Amino acid sequence: VTTEPAFIAALRALATDPAARGLLDDAALLGDLVLTHDMIVEGVHFLAADPPEDVAWKLLAVNLSDLAAKGATPVGVLMGYTLAGDERWDERFLAGFGETLRTLETRLLGGDTVSVLPGTPRSLGLTAVGRATGPVPARFGAQAGDALWVTGTIGDAGAGLRIALGEIEGSAELVRRYRRPEPRLQAGRALAPLVTAMMDVSDGLLLDAARLAEASGLAATVDLAALPLSAAYRSVRGTDRRARIDAAVAGDDYELLFAAPAERRAEIQAVGNELGLLISVVGAFRTGSGIELTEGGRPIPLPPSLGWQHGSS
Amino acid sequence: VTTEPAFIAALRALATDPAARGLLDDAALLGDLVLTHDMIVEGVHFLAADPPEDVAWKLLAVNLSDLAAKGATPVGVLMGYTLAGDERWDERFLAGFGETLRTLETRLLGGDTVSVLPGTPRSLGLTAVGRATGPVPARFGAQAGDALWVTGTIGDAGAGLRIALGEIEGSAELVRRYRRPEPRLQAGRALAPLVTAMMDVSDGLLLDAARLAEASGLAATVDLAALPLSAAYRSVRGTDRRARIDAAVAGDDYELLFAAPAERRAEIQAVGNELGLLISVVGAFRTGSGIELTEGGRPIPLPPSLGWQHGSS
Repeated sequence: VTTEPAFIAALRALATDPAARGLLDDAALLGDLVLTHDMIVEGVHFLAADPPEDVAWKLLAVNLSDLAAKGATPVGVLMGYTLAGDERWDERFLAGFGETLRTLETRLLGGDTVSVLPGTPRSLGLTAVGRATGPVPARFGAQAGDALWVTGTIGDAGAGLRIALGEIEGSAELVRRYRRPEPRLQAGRALAPLVTAMMDVSDGLLLDAARLAEASGLAATVDLAALPLSAAYRSVRGTDRRARIDAAVAGDDYELLFAAPAERRAEIQAVGNELGLLISVVGAFRTGSGIELTEGGRPIPLPPSLGWQHGSS
Repeated sequence: VTTEPAFIAALRALATDPAARGLLDDAALLGDLVLTHDMIVEGVHFLAADPPEDVAWKLLAVNLSDLAAKGATPVGVLMGYTLAGDERWDERFLAGFGETLRTLETRLLGGDTVSVLPGTPRSLGLTAVGRATGPVPARFGAQAGDALWVTGTIGDAGAGLRIALGEIEGSAELVRRYRRPEPRLQAGRALAPLVTAMMDVSDGLLLDAARLAEASGLAATVDLAALPLSAAYRSVRGTDRRARIDAAVAGDDYELLFAAPAERRAEIQAVGNELGLLISVVGAFRTGSGIELTEGGRPIPLPPSLGWQHGSS
């Protein structure tokens, strides 16, 4: 079967317009407009049992997270929605969608609705349009010597998913991190002028760091000991190597991952202080290729999977 | 279950931005950019047995048709694609997609790919971005006394679908009209300055004419005798009332339907002559509401269904 990486590689050959950034980026640029399109599918990105209001939140949040990584302010969204024959679900989705539009300060511009047979997994698509207010960071552009930074804490959503699936016990706070990721819009705008490359962490910090490094033609080192873990995560999983590796390869964090030169450190910390948002150095870029994992500076083996490789399983 | 009209009515309450035109239009406006999002779903908008190259064409064509109705020139598209585990299908889709991008002179700007379980109906979403080169007609704006016009011929795609399903015999040309609708981009740009309202015919001429009238706060009359039927359609279905009504309620034509005052007639005919495209008067607008069907000027009963009412069945 076609894997997503193989399909995307084939698509890249079609994306010849400079605005597409060779599909190496998470958004397209048209003048000062930033456009991104992400789908979420039942059973893949959300659970059939997830509250519909949370699914609406997630659909908007994962797309606005891409705008955040480009330092853009949301302008509006177009939605593709499948009606799967459950009126109550649709009502609750719509109520949540309206509330999320207000909370995340964006607008519905248009879209399309299609009825599918009941039982068909829902497939929801969203195009988000944002306006750049300054430089628009790409996935590429990191320089050797740059530090690798991440906002917030890592692994919470992954733990939340396991709690929602009943695999482990844990707090509602972690489940909420899985169902209601927070797009880092303010942080994205404040950081955009300070970074050399930026993306959001959707598929796992290690995998996304590897992508950032590859797009920039560099190698990256990630230090497990530097991973920012929440108190909720630590109370459920502890802080040993296994817990840290699980956090580093879990998806759905929707934090910002970026590269910046050493001289930006004070400005970046100031952004974190102003927004009350943890922003941590978790690694560094150097010449070469690939990704290396260390623990307190000592190299350790990479886990078999760096993250959520959609479709590769 | 929620019907599409009911769901769209609820969405409308959320679309408060002027750029959304209250979702009464088929596209949103941001500055001189026109944005539209349409999905096509296997088993609803295309058949599992349709050639993947044709599905790629249709996905692009139905979206560019919305741009055509706004008089816009395509800038680029973002695609949401489901990988359903059939490598050969995906390869053929991609080859067709690339070829269609070139033929229709647009570009791939971005998108998203999601793996779904084999056997899940494919759900393909596309956001098309266009640039307006002049006035951008809406669905609303028709005036009492305006004539109702349509480009090309009507009913061919509906007959083509029935041929593809093996329900009737007929020519490959009609099947092609179903699988490879031609977005009327040049005609849309040329007509945009001449019309008071314009949309594309996707769900059936009668239904879409009723929508155009309703959005404009008017009544419309459609004359069956004036319907432009192709030679291919006539050879399969004849020209009796049944054949004409079937043509008027069949979907997937993707022709342009528009309102224009009498004094524009010569200019509109000149556009048709220049493009080698039939453009016909099929009715008129008047004060009131609803739609009336006539045959050579005499009122006749409306058919039970005006067109393809997605999700209402």
